[in-house]
Amino acid sequence: MTAAVTESPLTGVELDRIDAYWRAANYLTVGQIYLRENPLLSEPLTAGHIKPRLLGHWGTSPGLNLVYAHLSRMITLRDLSVLYVTGPGHGGPALVANTWLEGTYSELYPTVSRDATGMTRLFRQFSTPGGIPSHVAPEVPGSIHEGGELGYSLMHAYGAAFDNPDLLVACVVGDGEAETGPLAASWLSNVFLNPARDGAVLPILHLNGYKIANPTVLARIPAEDLRSLLRGYGHEPYEVTSEDPREAHQLMAAALGSALDDIAQIQRLARRGGPARRPRWPMIVMRTPKGWTGPAIVDGLPVAGTFRAHQVPLPHPREDPRQLAALESWLRSYRPQELFDADGVPRDDVLLAPPRGNARMSANPAANGGVMLRDLALPDFREYAVPSPGPGLADVEPTRALGAWLRDVIDANRDRFRLFGPDEVASNRLGDAFTVTDRVFLADTVPGDDHLSPDGRVMEVLSEHLCQGWLEGYLLTGRHGVFTSYEAFIHVVDSMVNQHAKWLKVTRDIAWRRPIASLNYLLSSHVWRQDHNGFSHQDPGFIDHVINKKAEIVRVYLPPDANTLLVTMDRCLRSRNLINVVVAGKQVEPLWLDMAEAQSHCERGLGIWAWASNDAGVEPDVVLACAGDVPTMETLAAVGLLREHLPQLRVRVVNVVDLMRLQPDSEHPNGLKDKQFDTVFTTDRPIIFAYHGYPGVIHRLTYRRTNHPNLHVRGYKEEGTTTTPFDMVMLNDLDRFHLVIDVIDRVPGLGATAAHLRQAMIDARQQCRAHTREHGEDHPTITQWRWSGGDS
Amino acid sequence: MTAAVTESPLTGVELDRIDAYWRAANYLTVGQIYLRENPLLSEPLTAGHIKPRLLGHWGTSPGLNLVYAHLSRMITLRDLSVLYVTGPGHGGPALVANTWLEGTYSELYPTVSRDATGMTRLFRQFSTPGGIPSHVAPEVPGSIHEGGELGYSLMHAYGAAFDNPDLLVACVVGDGEAETGPLAASWLSNVFLNPARDGAVLPILHLNGYKIANPTVLARIPAEDLRSLLRGYGHEPYEVTSEDPREAHQLMAAALGSALDDIAQIQRLARRGGPARRPRWPMIVMRTPKGWTGPAIVDGLPVAGTFRAHQVPLPHPREDPRQLAALESWLRSYRPQELFDADGVPRDDVLLAPPRGNARMSANPAANGGVMLRDLALPDFREYAVPSPGPGLADVEPTRALGAWLRDVIDANRDRFRLFGPDEVASNRLGDAFTVTDRVFLADTVPGDDHLSPDGRVMEVLSEHLCQGWLEGYLLTGRHGVFTSYEAFIHVVDSMVNQHAKWLKVTRDIAWRRPIASLNYLLSSHVWRQDHNGFSHQDPGFIDHVINKKAEIVRVYLPPDANTLLVTMDRCLRSRNLINVVVAGKQVEPLWLDMAEAQSHCERGLGIWAWASNDAGVEPDVVLACAGDVPTMETLAAVGLLREHLPQLRVRVVNVVDLMRLQPDSEHPNGLKDKQFDTVFTTDRPIIFAYHGYPGVIHRLTYRRTNHPNLHVRGYKEEGTTTTPFDMVMLNDLDRFHLVIDVIDRVPGLGATAAHLRQAMIDARQQCRAHTREHGEDHPTITQWRWSGGDS
Repeated sequence: MTAAVTESPLTGVELDRIDAYWRAANYLTVGQIYLRENPLLSEPLTAGHIKPRLLGHWGTSPGLNLVYAHLSRMITLRDLSVLYVTGPGHGGPALVANTWLEGTYSELYPTVSRDATGMTRLFRQFSTPGGIPSHVAPEVPGSIHEGGELGYSLMHAYGAAFDNPDLLVACVVGDGEAETGPLAASWLSNVFLNPARDGAVLPILHLNGYKIANPTVLARIPAEDLRSLLRGYGHEPYEVTSEDPREAHQLMAAALGSALDDIAQIQRLARRGGPARRPRWPMIVMRTPKGWTGPAIVDGLPVAGTFRAHQVPLPHPREDPRQLAALESWLRSYRPQELFDADGVPRDDVLLAPPRGNARMSANPAANGGVMLRDLALPDFREYAVPSPGPGLADVEPTRALGAWLRDVIDANRDRFRLFGPDEVASNRLGDAFTVTDRVFLADTVPGDDHLSPDGRVMEVLSEHLCQGWLEGYLLTGRHGVFTSYEAFIHVVDSMVNQHAKWLKVTRDIAWRRPIASLNYLLSSHVWRQDHNGFSHQDPGFIDHVINKKAEIVRVYLPPDANTLLVTMDRCLRSRNLINVVVAGKQVEPLWLDMAEAQSHCERGLGIWAWASNDAGVEPDVVLACAGDVPTMETLAAVGLLREHLPQLRVRVVNVVDLMRLQPDSEHPNGLKDKQFDTVFTTDRPIIFAYHGYPGVIHRLTYRRTNHPNLHVRGYKEEGTTTTPFDMVMLNDLDRFHLVIDVIDRVPGLGATAAHLRQAMIDARQQCRAHTREHGEDHPTITQWRWSGGDS
Repeated sequence: MTAAVTESPLTGVELDRIDAYWRAANYLTVGQIYLRENPLLSEPLTAGHIKPRLLGHWGTSPGLNLVYAHLSRMITLRDLSVLYVTGPGHGGPALVANTWLEGTYSELYPTVSRDATGMTRLFRQFSTPGGIPSHVAPEVPGSIHEGGELGYSLMHAYGAAFDNPDLLVACVVGDGEAETGPLAASWLSNVFLNPARDGAVLPILHLNGYKIANPTVLARIPAEDLRSLLRGYGHEPYEVTSEDPREAHQLMAAALGSALDDIAQIQRLARRGGPARRPRWPMIVMRTPKGWTGPAIVDGLPVAGTFRAHQVPLPHPREDPRQLAALESWLRSYRPQELFDADGVPRDDVLLAPPRGNARMSANPAANGGVMLRDLALPDFREYAVPSPGPGLADVEPTRALGAWLRDVIDANRDRFRLFGPDEVASNRLGDAFTVTDRVFLADTVPGDDHLSPDGRVMEVLSEHLCQGWLEGYLLTGRHGVFTSYEAFIHVVDSMVNQHAKWLKVTRDIAWRRPIASLNYLLSSHVWRQDHNGFSHQDPGFIDHVINKKAEIVRVYLPPDANTLLVTMDRCLRSRNLINVVVAGKQVEPLWLDMAEAQSHCERGLGIWAWASNDAGVEPDVVLACAGDVPTMETLAAVGLLREHLPQLRVRVVNVVDLMRLQPDSEHPNGLKDKQFDTVFTTDRPIIFAYHGYPGVIHRLTYRRTNHPNLHVRGYKEEGTTTTPFDMVMLNDLDRFHLVIDVIDRVPGLGATAAHLRQAMIDARQQCRAHTREHGEDHPTITQWRWSGGDS
């Protein structure tokens, strides 16, 4: 690795002071894991002082504390704004310790005061029922990053840095999480960071060498290979390798000084109009022992510096007097009497290190994005309405219509809105964006590249993980965005969505966390239109996945046409603290509603389409419900057939935009009251529900409704291949002909005409299938079909 | 990059021959995308010869064909067994073309014969309704890797190579997919490959420079950085950079020769007992133009060598005579008359290149794992039974009991079984495995490392993606395995599971694909016991995810104790072509059944536990159903309370091991017939169902059952934190006390005693909560509870 410039930058006093701070943080970390009483060790430690359940992760904590201490020093020295992203977020007690030392914790949680009483509470609450989680959770000031699932720290860091030119995001990457795919992909995020416009990310790879029971890969490949790897990522690595604290302090101060010099130089050059190319950003490789300063040997086995230091190094101090003695000696090794006065208040030597006010990393406003949030300047979506000559008479690509509005959203919010997608913005027909902006790209470009520039506001990379992680980091620091992706492949980020949903759920109960902009998905290459991609690209199950999350967090919209899509996206971009999933087609489709109708329909979330129904003034014989663009078209085509051939049949058409309306209002805030539901869906008539995704979703949302026994759902049943659009709906029995058959089979007493029609439908399916097989295209009666106004 | 040793290894004849083969493959690729007639261009091309819908991916295809041609040559020269893994699997027509040239395609699909008739069929079927998918799908001989979702090629390649010492797995990695997280993590798989025991993986990074609309990152970082990166991964990269076909042939022949020399040397050394350390494996970087040899300019815009070559370079040859002429000229540039005789049979020059028989990559038996599959030697699980002194009287860690059996499974199948997990095998209490084997690790080791060796059969890496991908590759090539992971974080691989499920679904209809071993998940760190990890580690939704897949593919088991877990895992390891999800605890839990009872219970899949019920001979007043270890314990505790305090209440206890039994037999092969279901669950009594996961699953599986209106489900409702086990069930109203309340609220006419009991339950919940808050532990009445035989 590159040696830092100055070998011993700290004076003796500075060294003593930063070491005192570090020991204080380590002491408070151990105290949280072990102690329920006697926090200052003012009396000899007894078994009764120890918590009954010992939970927490010691191993990574001393390293996290070392980084925290040195960043704090640099903040003061250089007047920096720094966000600390904790990759090894299971080291929760370390971060809590620092925020308590800085005073932020006591400001936000006054009962946990910065004195002996507060210290006792600090220790007791940790990883205790009714207390705080063991990880760096939303409750921890200064965090934007839950310490649960590993792999997302570095992408969050980049998301935080985008459009935050004055922010330095220091990201500790654990060598465990470095083995994950998402983290491995994150390194080259630096290709998308513009030093002139964005802040800086300083990755600090924490090589403590071990996971739970294994060594880590990056700690065991040759050092030369590791350096080569990190340079391959475009970084200049500075190394801090030591087992001696005082040496480590000097090395870290030097490395950090050099890295910050480099960053300052990079930014200076870029902001003076230097070439907007990816520079070689610095990073730090910190090789220090796992469980550093903790017990070396326990029960005859080495602990510090091994995987055994991962969680609780001394597991049984309450039962084993030797372990109790070892714990006391460990705690006293930090010399707490030098760190805290008799009242438990940190002494001056400790308190001189951390910065004050919002300069404290625990108080950096970027970590509480809601306080930084500024509403988007949203152009009036009604001005982007597609004129409707009547239901089904205009053909529109919904996402192309949306693209014009999104273009102007981008244009009007150049400091706080970005569009994210895995190389699909243009193919999803949102290409209008490129009339006002580019794709951001800091690597080499060549003539002929299409809308690439360092200043672009569209972020395209072939990784759903990166799109999601960048956007999460961007939102969590108070900005806005939309993620557009293939419906099937958004499952790539299922687990990330879980973590973000959990974060949002928890923050709703934390008063000081202000609401942030919602996480918005636009899934436009959906299950029904994978004409050339086929079966592998068909999966509508992301909806199933998100509706397991807390009802207050989740919304799912299936706008049936361009105008309803515009209304829906405007609503999503105005919402806060939600996960909005919007599924809408990019292919040419009929426009059903004019803008006024679309607004009114979306306002209700679901409703009867009177213009398509013929049940005015009477209870219908059958309800044809639909959700999703393709099911809506098939339903209306089926209604056309029914009204032509069985004009006496009273048909009601219901369209659902807001899927959560189907749930009872007791289950979801958007849920329809039972009485309203019964009014729309009747209490006893057959309902044929044509649904965009897996039919189980509709049953799951409606099983408590009165008329559920008469609900029959068609949807995707995992049948598909490379074929035509209509063949796809036929393969899954969602086609117009099959919907007519479903109606005939469920409405009693329709007589001979219906029986005849039923056979005609079977024949029509066969003809369409045969035509497609022979000509490779859908039958003209399908491709040329238009809604003709119902009664013919 | 490293230059290859010999600059021009091909003689003129060899060069002509391999170029002819390559041109033939390219011609057949273009033919598949465009032609429905006139396959040999025996007459001038007309619009009528063109397919109506032009679908397919040209861009990557010429590169894939080049690699195929040169690998084939080397197979013949060096008598190799090679598996070809196609990362850019959307280049389906390229792989199909090669398999047709080799004859394999016609052997498996005789109507697509290797002549003009067959060629017409070959062209017509491609990406056509009723034909074949546009990607490298299961239908393609020689493939183990669907070309849908990107990112998994290299992990599949490694999975295929493990325990296949004579196999060379050539893996073309697209520079698009190289941006994904899973692919980025895959490179260091070489740390887990033992050259003495395993086969070799030869990554071929295909830098054609572009994705759909963007350049790729790896093609645009400095060449020096790329080399540094690949060396950081532990590889020695050989470069092939050319736009000139004849030069490219020489370069590729040289690079491949050098790479294969290196591999041979590595294997020779390792197999002669050399140091079992990770060598520097070779790889190839192939920098050739996207859409190489295709149209250079279309409508004034550059196409070949740009992103516009991604799919169909000439989009409108039917409509645009200039495009038609360009297409004809493009096709004729391959000189088809030199490649095929008048009957469409490939000429000798073309046919001399490919190898014969099973040496053809399209016929390599490893790519049709079922034909290689040998059953596991399974020790009799009954010999590992935990003795039962009576229901609930023994305390057992179920996974520890299973570990003994798994240990012996490993020991008895050292050539065909591996255990995969993200650093959790020991923490999941399967550590008995380490008495017979180690964790495989080829990087540096140090004294004190715990069971690491090059010969280990346990694969641990902190990446669920890698575990999944390696195991998939291992299964697809005819071996067996188990993946153990946290329940919450198995969502990381949701999307990979989708793809594997789709692969299995499709292969069921392909006669020549033989069944492979099932993909087995053991999820033992489950939602209810995240005592120290808390909310971020709680998510039981993987079950919801998998049950959306085709019923024939998916099984979900929730064994309630150690003996049922043994029976279940034996069943899973004997099954074929399934995805088995087993959720079972690792914590100390009561043993409910002896082995005979466990076998009988698992055989039925669900059943009445008569020993816990008191409804003998009569219809019960209430059914208490349960699925999962924790819900089972809470249910039995509730039953104990009910039978003690309301002895007149007739209670039936039903336990569900095989979740799919709940579905109608019309929906799932394991589904219970309605009549059986009614017999067990009654048609009209209240059912209180304590379920392991999200309650919606149970409703979704049972909504068609007669008694569904009386079904009330308790489960995880997304409430949790770092807390005690009993506090967790209380937070979600799944605790014994709440189940008793649920019974009282739903069984009419229970009178004053029940009202009194109800209040006592509310009080008990409050006491438990208070005790936990004060002492940090569960109340002793909970921790010391034992099933006491019902009637007290």
